[in-house]
Amino acid sequence: MYPKLIQELIEDFTHFPGIGPRQAARFVFYLLKEDKMRVQNLAEKIKRLHEEIGFCKQCFASVTLGEGKLQMLCRSCADAKRDSRVIMVVEKEADLQNIEKTHSFNGMYHVLNGVISPLDSSGPAKLHIKELLMRVKNLLAEKKQVEMILATNPTTEGDTTALYLERTFSPLKIKITRLGRGLTTGSELEYSDPETIKNAFINRR
Amino acid sequence: MYPKLIQELIEDFTHFPGIGPRQAARFVFYLLKEDKMRVQNLAEKIKRLHEEIGFCKQCFASVTLGEGKLQMLCRSCADAKRDSRVIMVVEKEADLQNIEKTHSFNGMYHVLNGVISPLDSSGPAKLHIKELLMRVKNLLAEKKQVEMILATNPTTEGDTTALYLERTFSPLKIKITRLGRGLTTGSELEYSDPETIKNAFINRR
Amino acid sequence: MYPKLIQELIEDFTHFPGIGPRQAARFVFYLLKEDKMRVQNLAEKIKRLHEEIGFCKQCFASVTLGEGKLQMLCRSCADAKRDSRVIMVVEKEADLQNIEKTHSFNGMYHVLNGVISPLDSSGPAKLHIKELLMRVKNLLAEKKQVEMILATNPTTEGDTTALYLERTFSPLKIKITRLGRGLTTGSELEYSDPETIKNAFINRR
Amino acid sequence: MYPKLIQELIEDFTHFPGIGPRQAARFVFYLLKEDKMRVQNLAEKIKRLHEEIGFCKQCFASVTLGEGKLQMLCRSCADAKRDSRVIMVVEKEADLQNIEKTHSFNGMYHVLNGVISPLDSSGPAKLHIKELLMRVKNLLAEKKQVEMILATNPTTEGDTTALYLERTFSPLKIKITRLGRGLTTGSELEYSDPETIKNAFINRR
Repeated sequence: MYPKLIQELIEDFTHFPGIGPRQAARFVFYLLKEDKMRVQNLAEKIKRLHEEIGFCKQCFASVTLGEGKLQMLCRSCADAKRDSRVIMVVEKEADLQNIEKTHSFNGMYHVLNGVISPLDSSGPAKLHIKELLMRVKNLLAEKKQVEMILATNPTTEGDTTALYLERTFSPLKIKITRLGRGLTTGSELEYSDPETIKNAFINRR
Repeated sequence: MYPKLIQELIEDFTHFPGIGPRQAARFVFYLLKEDKMRVQNLAEKIKRLHEEIGFCKQCFASVTLGEGKLQMLCRSCADAKRDSRVIMVVEKEADLQNIEKTHSFNGMYHVLNGVISPLDSSGPAKLHIKELLMRVKNLLAEKKQVEMILATNPTTEGDTTALYLERTFSPLKIKITRLGRGLTTGSELEYSDPETIKNAFINRR
Repeated sequence: MYPKLIQELIEDFTHFPGIGPRQAARFVFYLLKEDKMRVQNLAEKIKRLHEEIGFCKQCFASVTLGEGKLQMLCRSCADAKRDSRVIMVVEKEADLQNIEKTHSFNGMYHVLNGVISPLDSSGPAKLHIKELLMRVKNLLAEKKQVEMILATNPTTEGDTTALYLERTFSPLKIKITRLGRGLTTGSELEYSDPETIKNAFINRR
Repeated sequence: MYPKLIQELIEDFTHFPGIGPRQAARFVFYLLKEDKMRVQNLAEKIKRLHEEIGFCKQCFASVTLGEGKLQMLCRSCADAKRDSRVIMVVEKEADLQNIEKTHSFNGMYHVLNGVISPLDSSGPAKLHIKELLMRVKNLLAEKKQVEMILATNPTTEGDTTALYLERTFSPLKIKITRLGRGLTTGSELEYSDPETIKNAFINRR
């Protein structure tokens, strides 16, 4: 049996995504071997996390809070050179970051902060959908041509969420698109599922 | 050391795609345990393989040879209800079979029987490209509108091959398309490579 | 759909241990690409398998049949320099081969040709246990000091089989041993199961 | 690009054993989603780690520091019912914990806190070997019969370390044993390496 504090930390780390008890224990002993200053420095940062980080009031990407914890705009929302009429709707910020890496999109984002599971009816309320609705309506009020790109994952939850959004926003008569399905780089036709092949065929260019 | 015949068979089976010595040995002992009649029956079929199976004279998919080993047309090439003006070019027959499963394509196929590796200059000659060229020219001679769909794998070899075909056939001024790239069902944006995301963005619908 | 003969061969290959339909198809196309002579040569060998290979009348390892399909003794059983009083009992011949690779055992073998599953009561009858009993009794008749090493796998089936053999042979008052349990090369204490550690502790040297 | 604090935390988490940038990012967003109190609580514990946890002055397992950060004895070292003459030498505390789970060892431990890599000559100095030497000498001074069980992993590093310890302690004429090698539960003879089989044969019982 480990000392109490170590046991508690192991328990805490097992709540980290994808971490089992063994790796959690390894984390604690890594910290014990690390330089004390560095570890306390890490603790400091973790402590400051909720105090210094907030979410963009427009797209809900993470941002450093301003003076007096003022909700700020994130980099892309504040960037005048980006096309505010094209909104890429993503499940989580990691998707946004990965899309940015491609440097092929110059519009803006909206982080739903989750997905709707087919089973969970209360789902939609948890996501930033009302805010998205408001955001789109404001653009329309400014007589802007809006395109909403549904960039949820091509998974059951992602598709359910996209479907829900399509239904919710169709009354607004805006252009709603979804990321194209097809063959991923490196994949093989022999092992591709029918739906993917069908989409690759439809999306041939 | 196994008896000579067993050793030889193990050696032979190690040449089967993806089979190492251990599994090869397991194959031999599986055959030794199997009913003698069934094993000799299997041997019979393997013996007949080269004698009874040939390749479609038009698309090079496998076919049962006719009387006097006559080269025949495969099922899809012989099917009048299929659109002979749309040719899906695939690397190997397994791809063709998997595409057929989707029931979303009603054109015809052309099996290249391999790919061009970026390193291997002699590559093209090994593939059924001359025959494809002839096939397309015949269609054009009949004043037909031809579409050639390059359905090689989205891999380095597959792309090299597609590129080579595009160059070879562009003088013919036919419609040349490629299977659409994008997100595969079940994949996640967070882990998708830039190229795939870029394509998914371009192919959004 | 593939031609009938190809379909049948794919079906046959899916009965090979560890082979699914896709790899089975790859096998057939590998054979179709292979040189005709080599393939028919392979078929020949498969055909001869049941005719030319038998099993050692003493230990049931595979042997090349002699004139008139005479049951012969295998290499190790025929080897006068090996100690016939020490019998290593293995589940299958592949185990025997792997043990021989170590060059650390100079006794003889007995291939059970399977295991007893805890659920399958009819199991023992299928294995070469009667023959083993006879073999041991003959040695005892010659006033020989016999050691029987149970080299079944350290799995549930293997242990069940070993237990059954211990019970069956204990009346003969011979020395019965089992392969030692402990840490395998490359394994890690942190991930080893309690039983293995316990055995490693007991077997410390 | 994430806000600076998030970037820094991602960077920090990538130093955790077995964590890449993607999972590190997931950790940060997990913390952002978590309840603020729980997160700051975690930070608190991490901060206290180096202040409250020390290492047993005898065996170097982790212990809660006493008043005035006094070095204490760990549970097993303080346990009078355990046999202080048998010392199980392990690479790290996780091994000790896993061995304890077996409830088959009633001696004491010594945590080396690492291994000697064959390449790294400075290695030994980093490990708690001097302390082990002192510990053994004290036991011998008390005219005690000492057994030292080398429980390093059966890996190249572990074996190198064990070899080094054997050389270092042989002059003391104490009983030095190593955990037994053999078949691990669930493993298969067909796939076992020669050394393991050889040891299983030698350790047969």
